[in-house]
Amino acid sequence: MDKTIGIFGGGQLGRMMAQAALPLNIQCTFLEANVDCPAAQLGQVISTQAANAIHDFLNSADVFSLEFENTPLADVDVLTQHKAMFPPRQALAIAQHRLSEKALFDQLDIPVAPYRGVDSLESLQHAVQDLGLPLVLKTATGGYDGKGQFVLRSAEQIAQAWAELGPAKSLIAESFVHFSREVSIIAVRGQNGDVKTWPLAENHHHHGILSHSIVPAPNSADLQPLAQDYITRLLNHLDYVGVLTLELFVTDQGLFANEMAPRVHNSGHWSIEGAVCSQFENHIRAVAGLPLGSTELIRPTVMVNIIGKHPRTADVLGLEGAHLHLYNKTEREGRKIGHITLMPTHSEQLTTLCRQLAQILPEPLALHADIQIEL
Amino acid sequence: MDKTIGIFGGGQLGRMMAQAALPLNIQCTFLEANVDCPAAQLGQVISTQAANAIHDFLNSADVFSLEFENTPLADVDVLTQHKAMFPPRQALAIAQHRLSEKALFDQLDIPVAPYRGVDSLESLQHAVQDLGLPLVLKTATGGYDGKGQFVLRSAEQIAQAWAELGPAKSLIAESFVHFSREVSIIAVRGQNGDVKTWPLAENHHHHGILSHSIVPAPNSADLQPLAQDYITRLLNHLDYVGVLTLELFVTDQGLFANEMAPRVHNSGHWSIEGAVCSQFENHIRAVAGLPLGSTELIRPTVMVNIIGKHPRTADVLGLEGAHLHLYNKTEREGRKIGHITLMPTHSEQLTTLCRQLAQILPEPLALHADIQIEL
Repeated sequence: MDKTIGIFGGGQLGRMMAQAALPLNIQCTFLEANVDCPAAQLGQVISTQAANAIHDFLNSADVFSLEFENTPLADVDVLTQHKAMFPPRQALAIAQHRLSEKALFDQLDIPVAPYRGVDSLESLQHAVQDLGLPLVLKTATGGYDGKGQFVLRSAEQIAQAWAELGPAKSLIAESFVHFSREVSIIAVRGQNGDVKTWPLAENHHHHGILSHSIVPAPNSADLQPLAQDYITRLLNHLDYVGVLTLELFVTDQGLFANEMAPRVHNSGHWSIEGAVCSQFENHIRAVAGLPLGSTELIRPTVMVNIIGKHPRTADVLGLEGAHLHLYNKTEREGRKIGHITLMPTHSEQLTTLCRQLAQILPEPLALHADIQIEL
Repeated sequence: MDKTIGIFGGGQLGRMMAQAALPLNIQCTFLEANVDCPAAQLGQVISTQAANAIHDFLNSADVFSLEFENTPLADVDVLTQHKAMFPPRQALAIAQHRLSEKALFDQLDIPVAPYRGVDSLESLQHAVQDLGLPLVLKTATGGYDGKGQFVLRSAEQIAQAWAELGPAKSLIAESFVHFSREVSIIAVRGQNGDVKTWPLAENHHHHGILSHSIVPAPNSADLQPLAQDYITRLLNHLDYVGVLTLELFVTDQGLFANEMAPRVHNSGHWSIEGAVCSQFENHIRAVAGLPLGSTELIRPTVMVNIIGKHPRTADVLGLEGAHLHLYNKTEREGRKIGHITLMPTHSEQLTTLCRQLAQILPEPLALHADIQIEL
């Protein structure tokens, strides 16, 4: 092994990072509550329950990274007294707090929907007056996949919304954005400051969870340069190293930043097969101080999540050109347990593949029956 | 885990099979003399030195395969009393004996260079009379990467050749084939009889070891259907399951079969990035009884072996579009310790990449300074 990278978290993102690291003779270790996690087949798992967990983790690797943005900053501070960690602490701190994140977007002239900080019932009432309804109330910290959110549609719901989310103390109220679609841009920055960006993904959700991503996002030629510009501002301002994701809404007034994730992202899983160098390999390269690989698209790609229940493996592999990635997780409603990458060669093939896939995926369907896209 | 595949051998081929198996929730185990082998990071290694090695191996997996053709048939016979193994025993038995192999090629009308069986000094002298000089004398069993061979150029060398190889008892004398180049065809056959074939690779050697492969082999449009036909005859005749490789010489008289390897092959490593589905994944799919993936070419590819010494990782990853695969092996002269995949987008880029790579690879150069190919 040339180098060992210690990763906060051992879920599917850590697993796919370690898969990408292996051919480079780079080993990964993982700090994770569940020692039977998806990454466990690929490297040592240090239990967060162990007496000297952080100390053992520190000694297990040469350099550190993460797979989830809620990595405790206190742990990061212990590690970084001795060894390097990428992405940098400040990126993590900002991404963990929605108000700090919006402030950074404002500072870098990256458009966002109007918002207000909320820390009392009174300030929520003011926010409703200022922003109008509907609005989305979110906890400033924590929350993912639609959790920790409340869509306020009428003034009568104010008390209920505050009752549900108020205990979190720090909230953000955001104007409801009338967007035609959600896209994400993923980029990587190396230790030498090189930046490379993958094509925009168009993301579709089902019950608040990513269902599928289409890459490149249809009709995104005009959006790509702007999205690249926004994420590059963030990367350079934060002196970022590694992969960063920026979720954006496409609206009548242009692109609005939704949030950033200081890590590899579900909407970038397509890049394992669809790009010359995947988000996972480029993140590993960046953290290890190696040159970045090309983010060039190989073929238009549709990535479909497997949520809750496994389809039959043989059914998926019987689809022309399909790639299957299972995470070695047990089935549970609403849980991401794998994904499928389709790389159609033309639009008719995509339609056929999507219809076949919709029949194969177990109920509840994560995939809408018909994806309408232009390739 | 859905299924476990036990593999005879835990070298780089086993390692890359296990890498391909992981996303399908298929685990591999390995029977291997060296417990610190390249595959050890990816699954349990059962030492061939252990008291109950074969018994433990039998219990470690649901179905069996191999990564090296000299897998002992006696071990296979123990396993197959209880569980299935692919490829089938008869393919292995034939591939382990050059005379049986040639007889099969003859039987299936696959052209080979004139040859004679040799089991005495006298029969060697007769072979020289019948076939003329030069000829190549090889042991019927064992031998790889140029070992166990003697090129006889004059009658005075007969005694020396017999002294060197005679102790092996069963030899084969082959007419020296005047070939313009060596190519290989790799195909996979599923448990349902489906056959898929990758494009021909053109193989270049350095000191008897594969140096690099170019895919598709330049100017091979006419050769591809014939090579596909030959390997399909072999697959169907042997009721084969898994990946099979056939090495061929391109001569003035057409394609001559050299030998077959009942396994994934170094000349197919390009397929990890260069084909929709790699030789490793398709071998795993076949052994696991799953549908085969597309063997379609994504882009023309040059695969270059790393032999003896590691280049600097950063130098390799700095090459545009290059992929690096290290096997976690220690350096040793003549040893394959990794490979590099180049996927140039046009001929000029290939020339540039090859020149850059030739400067990066440590001495002795495994790569000739200039690859001349048409893309």
